[in-house]
Amino acid sequence: VVTDPLLTLTTDFGTDSPYVAAMKGVLLQRNPSARLIDLSHAIPPQDVRHAAFFLAGALAYWPTGTLHVLVVDPGVGTDRAILYVEHAGQRLLVPDNGCWTWFHRRRGTPTVRQVTNRRYWLPGVSHTFHGRDIFAPVAGELSRGLDPAELGPLVTEWVRLPWPEPKQEGGVIRGEVLFVDHFGNLITNLPGADLPGWPVRVEVGGREITRCVRTYGEAMAGELVVLLSSADLLEVARAQGSAARTLGVGVGTPVTVT
Amino acid sequence: VVTDPLLTLTTDFGTDSPYVAAMKGVLLQRNPSARLIDLSHAIPPQDVRHAAFFLAGALAYWPTGTLHVLVVDPGVGTDRAILYVEHAGQRLLVPDNGCWTWFHRRRGTPTVRQVTNRRYWLPGVSHTFHGRDIFAPVAGELSRGLDPAELGPLVTEWVRLPWPEPKQEGGVIRGEVLFVDHFGNLITNLPGADLPGWPVRVEVGGREITRCVRTYGEAMAGELVVLLSSADLLEVARAQGSAARTLGVGVGTPVTVT
Amino acid sequence: VVTDPLLTLTTDFGTDSPYVAAMKGVLLQRNPSARLIDLSHAIPPQDVRHAAFFLAGALAYWPTGTLHVLVVDPGVGTDRAILYVEHAGQRLLVPDNGCWTWFHRRRGTPTVRQVTNRRYWLPGVSHTFHGRDIFAPVAGELSRGLDPAELGPLVTEWVRLPWPEPKQEGGVIRGEVLFVDHFGNLITNLPGADLPGWPVRVEVGGREITRCVRTYGEAMAGELVVLLSSADLLEVARAQGSAARTLGVGVGTPVTVT
Repeated sequence: VVTDPLLTLTTDFGTDSPYVAAMKGVLLQRNPSARLIDLSHAIPPQDVRHAAFFLAGALAYWPTGTLHVLVVDPGVGTDRAILYVEHAGQRLLVPDNGCWTWFHRRRGTPTVRQVTNRRYWLPGVSHTFHGRDIFAPVAGELSRGLDPAELGPLVTEWVRLPWPEPKQEGGVIRGEVLFVDHFGNLITNLPGADLPGWPVRVEVGGREITRCVRTYGEAMAGELVVLLSSADLLEVARAQGSAARTLGVGVGTPVTVT
Repeated sequence: VVTDPLLTLTTDFGTDSPYVAAMKGVLLQRNPSARLIDLSHAIPPQDVRHAAFFLAGALAYWPTGTLHVLVVDPGVGTDRAILYVEHAGQRLLVPDNGCWTWFHRRRGTPTVRQVTNRRYWLPGVSHTFHGRDIFAPVAGELSRGLDPAELGPLVTEWVRLPWPEPKQEGGVIRGEVLFVDHFGNLITNLPGADLPGWPVRVEVGGREITRCVRTYGEAMAGELVVLLSSADLLEVARAQGSAARTLGVGVGTPVTVT
Repeated sequence: VVTDPLLTLTTDFGTDSPYVAAMKGVLLQRNPSARLIDLSHAIPPQDVRHAAFFLAGALAYWPTGTLHVLVVDPGVGTDRAILYVEHAGQRLLVPDNGCWTWFHRRRGTPTVRQVTNRRYWLPGVSHTFHGRDIFAPVAGELSRGLDPAELGPLVTEWVRLPWPEPKQEGGVIRGEVLFVDHFGNLITNLPGADLPGWPVRVEVGGREITRCVRTYGEAMAGELVVLLSSADLLEVARAQGSAARTLGVGVGTPVTVT
């Protein structure tokens, strides 16, 4: 069975407003047999860093040739560019704000085009809703087989989101909370492979946590534990609860490991 | 490639309860190859006006012949009718509570049938869940090609949701907040085309706003601005924040423009 | 038209984190033509009982042969088993924590296998994310036609979630709130068929409710009413409001009927 290419959508639009619904309509007008898959419409508003972590955690698992449309776009209507990216077998249509650059971090060189050819856009593009007026029609055309070279020129410069590198000082590693997940687990920027050993002693939010486990089920209800996340990053979790709420911490909070 | 017709779902059911899941099951039992697309299950409970704005903002972008099922239905189980509507190339299955009438406002005459033929309903219709027992099986049959004339008789009367018309008094235009979107932007009932000029001076929630921009990115973080929405309605927004929360206002709040 | 089997997803992952997106990617890598349908990603975190009610309310409506993947899995990474279940025409892939056992309650004997054959899992299974590493690839293979016998051995023992049976004492029936739905309606464990008559007098949260209706629309705004749910269970609702919030009650609160 030959099937149309997969096309995923990720936005910060929520679904209580008509924005996602309008985007889907435009996309399906351009390609009625497009195979839309929702990844998320619950990215926190305008949170490019959250979007970057989300894409980095999700895209590597997708079939080669999938087209991912991401619209988390605080710069809509300004002179920020729109990019078409091919990297590691995935295709992306994204605003040029760094949202995709944690996905390609350390892994080869992406092919990037600036989307400048207005021929595939909606006529009368608005200043506030490029998701509907540019991303959706262009994605529809791409999913029908449009040659990406038609979109616009290759570019070699784009906005990069800085990755917060951990610092080693003596026997201490200093990092930070990179992402708070749906369960309130704190995912840090400290790769398991870089840790000095196991178990470790972690300080975050004024608390010291020494209980190191392999999985949530080993902890007692309410207990704060340290483990390695499914992306092999150091994680602080609270069994059957939210570590973020318990500790009163969030993205950017310093984390030290000894 | 011939594909089955598209079928969209919009409800106020949330997805934490099994209601949407049951509806999808019934629908796919009637037509296993139906192409379901979620528009929203996050319409605020029983908020017909919110649903009306949602449909008006989304439906015009869909391919001709798409069937849209909307279940925001405070009158379920009473003698309110269920309607099948064809208008401007779109097909709708809706409760007769005005939820669809902002979509057809000012644009031609819709073809409307009352859904009365119980032959296509689930046997033993409940009093509280017509989404599962009537809307879903009827939508499944329609998406398989059922002649709409089978559903019930043509009607010329239906519930209309009043559109709040702005008022002009001297040099002042008085309108109201029509919709608060996911970002907390205030969408008003004041069309850009009817404004006396640009820039304008807007009063809402006891605040006067004179900063008029084309797009969110032109504003400084936290700044309250006036702009035209993607549907060409006057909008009050707070850059990187929520105008609704900052101003403490909501749907129905008066807005004056001078 | 022959179509691929339907495959539904239900999790407590939310969609703000990349977990569902990663699962969908793995699944579609194994079977690019799988027909994914989201049931819910809004099950409250680790709430197996909520998941059990959800599945019991939704699965009976699905076409025969649909594969339902449920990941609400507080025991991930421990020695809890993963089960493949065939029952009443539905197929399920679930953690062995009782989440599916209210679906088969009183209705025949399910066929159950323990998923032990690592051949179909991702290499290098993590300790914290079996949704991505086991459930998704196994579901992808099953939807492509893998013989379930390949997954692992038949078993006859599994975790059962106790169903709270109501108690009859004299003229009084004592039950409890089983589920609070999206609207704040209180669904109890009292079947309509077991009630002594109609109308009834209900006590819950220190309030006595005697107003019995057939449907929400018969009640006045704000009124507390008793009715029978769409699953024929006694329900307490507040017209145009939340009974749960008004009464300050939740799952497990005692309910008496006289």
